[in-house]
Amino acid sequence: MSSEQVSVTFQPSGRRVYVLPGSKVLEAAGRAGLPLDTPCGGAGTCGKCRVRFAEGACEPCAEDRAIFPEAELAAGWRLACQSAICGDATIHVPDSSLFADQHQILAERAGETGELLPAVRKVHLQLPRPSLEDDRPDLLRIEGPAGPLRAGLDLLRDLPTRLRACGFAGTAVFTDHHLIDFEPGDTTAHCYGAAFDIGTTTLAGSLLDLRDGRELALASNMNPQIRFGDDVLSRIQKAGSAEGREELRSAIIGAVQDLLAEMCRKASLDREHIYEVVLAGNTTMQHLLCGLDVTPLGAVPFAPACGRGLMVRAAELGVGIHPRGAAYVFPVIGGFVGGDTVSCMLATRLAEQDGPVLLIDIGTNGEIVLAHEGKLWAASTAAGPAFEGARIRQGMRATAGAIEKVVFDGEVRISTIADSEPVGLCGSALVDAAAELLRAGLVTSEGRMRIEGELPAGLSPDIAQRVCVGADGQPEFILAPAGPAGEGVRLTQRDIRELQLASGAIRAGVNILLARVGLKTADLKRVLIAGGFGSFIRRSNAQRIGLLPGDVDRRRIQYVGNASLNGARWALLSTNARKTAERLAREAEHVELSQDMNFQMEFAEAMIFPTG
Amino acid sequence: MSSEQVSVTFQPSGRRVYVLPGSKVLEAAGRAGLPLDTPCGGAGTCGKCRVRFAEGACEPCAEDRAIFPEAELAAGWRLACQSAICGDATIHVPDSSLFADQHQILAERAGETGELLPAVRKVHLQLPRPSLEDDRPDLLRIEGPAGPLRAGLDLLRDLPTRLRACGFAGTAVFTDHHLIDFEPGDTTAHCYGAAFDIGTTTLAGSLLDLRDGRELALASNMNPQIRFGDDVLSRIQKAGSAEGREELRSAIIGAVQDLLAEMCRKASLDREHIYEVVLAGNTTMQHLLCGLDVTPLGAVPFAPACGRGLMVRAAELGVGIHPRGAAYVFPVIGGFVGGDTVSCMLATRLAEQDGPVLLIDIGTNGEIVLAHEGKLWAASTAAGPAFEGARIRQGMRATAGAIEKVVFDGEVRISTIADSEPVGLCGSALVDAAAELLRAGLVTSEGRMRIEGELPAGLSPDIAQRVCVGADGQPEFILAPAGPAGEGVRLTQRDIRELQLASGAIRAGVNILLARVGLKTADLKRVLIAGGFGSFIRRSNAQRIGLLPGDVDRRRIQYVGNASLNGARWALLSTNARKTAERLAREAEHVELSQDMNFQMEFAEAMIFPTG
Repeated sequence: MSSEQVSVTFQPSGRRVYVLPGSKVLEAAGRAGLPLDTPCGGAGTCGKCRVRFAEGACEPCAEDRAIFPEAELAAGWRLACQSAICGDATIHVPDSSLFADQHQILAERAGETGELLPAVRKVHLQLPRPSLEDDRPDLLRIEGPAGPLRAGLDLLRDLPTRLRACGFAGTAVFTDHHLIDFEPGDTTAHCYGAAFDIGTTTLAGSLLDLRDGRELALASNMNPQIRFGDDVLSRIQKAGSAEGREELRSAIIGAVQDLLAEMCRKASLDREHIYEVVLAGNTTMQHLLCGLDVTPLGAVPFAPACGRGLMVRAAELGVGIHPRGAAYVFPVIGGFVGGDTVSCMLATRLAEQDGPVLLIDIGTNGEIVLAHEGKLWAASTAAGPAFEGARIRQGMRATAGAIEKVVFDGEVRISTIADSEPVGLCGSALVDAAAELLRAGLVTSEGRMRIEGELPAGLSPDIAQRVCVGADGQPEFILAPAGPAGEGVRLTQRDIRELQLASGAIRAGVNILLARVGLKTADLKRVLIAGGFGSFIRRSNAQRIGLLPGDVDRRRIQYVGNASLNGARWALLSTNARKTAERLAREAEHVELSQDMNFQMEFAEAMIFPTG
Repeated sequence: MSSEQVSVTFQPSGRRVYVLPGSKVLEAAGRAGLPLDTPCGGAGTCGKCRVRFAEGACEPCAEDRAIFPEAELAAGWRLACQSAICGDATIHVPDSSLFADQHQILAERAGETGELLPAVRKVHLQLPRPSLEDDRPDLLRIEGPAGPLRAGLDLLRDLPTRLRACGFAGTAVFTDHHLIDFEPGDTTAHCYGAAFDIGTTTLAGSLLDLRDGRELALASNMNPQIRFGDDVLSRIQKAGSAEGREELRSAIIGAVQDLLAEMCRKASLDREHIYEVVLAGNTTMQHLLCGLDVTPLGAVPFAPACGRGLMVRAAELGVGIHPRGAAYVFPVIGGFVGGDTVSCMLATRLAEQDGPVLLIDIGTNGEIVLAHEGKLWAASTAAGPAFEGARIRQGMRATAGAIEKVVFDGEVRISTIADSEPVGLCGSALVDAAAELLRAGLVTSEGRMRIEGELPAGLSPDIAQRVCVGADGQPEFILAPAGPAGEGVRLTQRDIRELQLASGAIRAGVNILLARVGLKTADLKRVLIAGGFGSFIRRSNAQRIGLLPGDVDRRRIQYVGNASLNGARWALLSTNARKTAERLAREAEHVELSQDMNFQMEFAEAMIFPTG
């Protein structure tokens, strides 16, 4: 079936994905990293997720006809939540249809409002040359009326020579009230910054034009620290020695450097024109990349070294941008609720949302934030890296060859990324498969996989024949049979157990946090799902396995993409956003779930899959 | 005659000087670096300069009797401006009799007022250990309610280990809102800073206890850059190459390091407990010690690299104190009016003085500041190093063996520092000798030394026989005849020319500055004389040679000691003083004398000695 996949190209980003015919455009866009705005929850009623097919448009459905006039339908306009992909297609996504993270809003409004306030500013100056009538010191000449301007010794040492070499005409580069360079000529057109989401398993970077907030390149890679262990605790242990700490530090900085190099290549620009980086990650990742001592994060009460954001020279971190470029590392809330969570809160304006709102950032750690009546509670659960493909026998990241979707419709239908031969499965397929196995009665609510002889009556032969027993005597389910090109892909009993642990940890966290505040899942006005994985998850399946509460209307569940990266982008573009981040980090109440008396009980209960 | 000198010891400082019997206590105290407060100008009427002889008291004079009751006279109380030294003496100088520079006021009032506000603070803390109820990050734990606390990466990297090693009990060291260390135990008793006056010829340092402002040690040495030239222009030329700049930088930093080492030895303390240094020097010296490019200071319009004060890590300058200790380098006014002038303005509260007040800082450059009706004008003149002993054939600094006083009273009487065999003469003796030679008619007002056959009638034989001709055929005057122990000391025609240039430059500057503002010398309410040399100068002689205006009542001329060092001390003890310094530097109007159309004319006129 995977050979039936079709190619969908999104414009203006040019991102391309491969999906099964019949997939909704909304889903394909999510796969392409373009979460669309669906306040109606994909019911086809709000008309927010409008897109335009340039080629490969399907027939308009009733919902399309209710929203678009005939001329627009003829031009290819459709609702992404209703329209299916019927063949190779090219689809235009207007900015207004994207889930509006603050970075996007800012980039759109650049120039119109004063919100685009990056710490880095470039100003082309033709300064008056010193004269007897105007013998002001060089730095005061650049300062202007805005107030005291500082400069580091290394720049000051050569500033006089450089100013005179260019005849006092050039481009001053400022970060806040510091002059970091004076470049000959007018270089104002080259003013870039990079934002990073530093995950335990995955790193993502975004290169922005600081003049207008436009994204020039995106890149992501694996966190190379994985070779020291796939969760934060194993990293903390490894960092117990000075050598270990340095190994972890240089590994992650090396990955950041790689992302920077890749993005500079993609955008054809010079690293020296990147003047600032903003980094958001969980507390352990941020500490490790700064080379801080993480030993106290390994034991109760998990106290971090620092809480407020760090503003340092990028060179001090080993990040190779402009030699006097800056680095801002996000503030953290507590031991396991870090800068990435603050960044998500920032990107979604969580504190300003109406009614009880829950934010779930699904990653190796699952961070959960509840906003209610002007207050914020934040917690972290050790979900483990199962959703990112680790600890699953044939698990993998969502890259070429990964099964990313599983549907049972009498037979087993799978969709593989890049339409490749299936070699493993990623997190979304894990959730799909488990949900379908539950629906088919092949997995019990306790998570036991049924074996031959226990199978429910009426099971289709195609599905029944995929139930088997592995070499370890444990049940397995064949998602893709072995063939000439590969050994196939199987889901194991152990994989189901890993999923139960990961899903149960997050769900228990949600329940405890709600109980703390005296709320039930049904009270939630909205549930925001963040994280690279979160964008691909299918809500009904996440509800089926109990990861998301079943009594929350699907329309209240919204994907917000990699909100941590979006928040980092926003902080790169706005010093006001940083102030907000600092405030949010200090205002949020840190709930330490592992120490909650009810956590073990909740966890045990949440590991049980809901009955159909 | 030098064998007749007597020893005077001042308490509580323990400083000892040797003076001629008959010298006023006021003069001896000035020699000892203890400028006394004489608002009446030494007329014996204000009663401010009271001192107490512990031994060697002379008979009280009428002025003493008018001020002190009999019991106090019996206890040794006298007026320093009236009482003469009649033999070896030990004299107590109460703090209240010292010229009250702001550092002294601050040190006296420490604890009483909130004025003692050093940037460096130490606080002994017994922090609550992290617990489940209180899992705040380490740095926030130290922060307290005062607001965001920052720390550099190098400290943060090991902060968790160090806090835990000392059980969260120790001493936090802050500079402004930065944590620079957390020391085990209670080290609050060890909190030091050092202030420096960086002169073209002479460096002076002062080590202070930052808790109460007390001075723990003083030291001074020659500026080793002298080997590259004795004035700022020759240094600027030498610094034209990168190697030259580095040579000059490391030479002066080496001298600062030597002073630090000497003061730490004297006070028996550890350099690591010095957390801040404050440095004040002229613009060129400050630029050179920071390693800044000084090329533009070598040509019109002499624009400095920066104007505001610099706050950097001491380690960046190469100054070895606490590894994260700070350095504050004074703001400058312009190319040749630097941080030392700002520091003098600060120490004397010049801007707050009543009436037109003139400050003259006599050094290798003579800086002149006029305060009038809330405005400030500042100028610099290239006096050259003559007053500091350079460019004078047998000139030397005011150290052992230097003739420091010359009196003609029928014979030539000299006084030598430390009562040593005379080997040269220092600046005050140069002024004395020139004044006496003028009075005796041995030097004409054009500065020509008279030779045998031109001598005035009635000259005493002792003096007449000292007039001679040097090997170059030019007139010379024997101050100390050659003897078995040495070659003697002679003043040459060329020396007189150097003095004319030095004195004329300063006096021309004074005249131009006054003319700018529409004032005459007679309008001056006060003239403040600053500088190491300034403390030793005799006002009548300075007026006789025209260095100081003759129509200003002597009582309006006040010595303020090394005001640049005093201002640096004050800035070390008070961040408010730094703010004032920054403001003064920007408010003062920089008058570039060398470009004044009248300067050459004024200079030529000022070189003529006044007629008797």
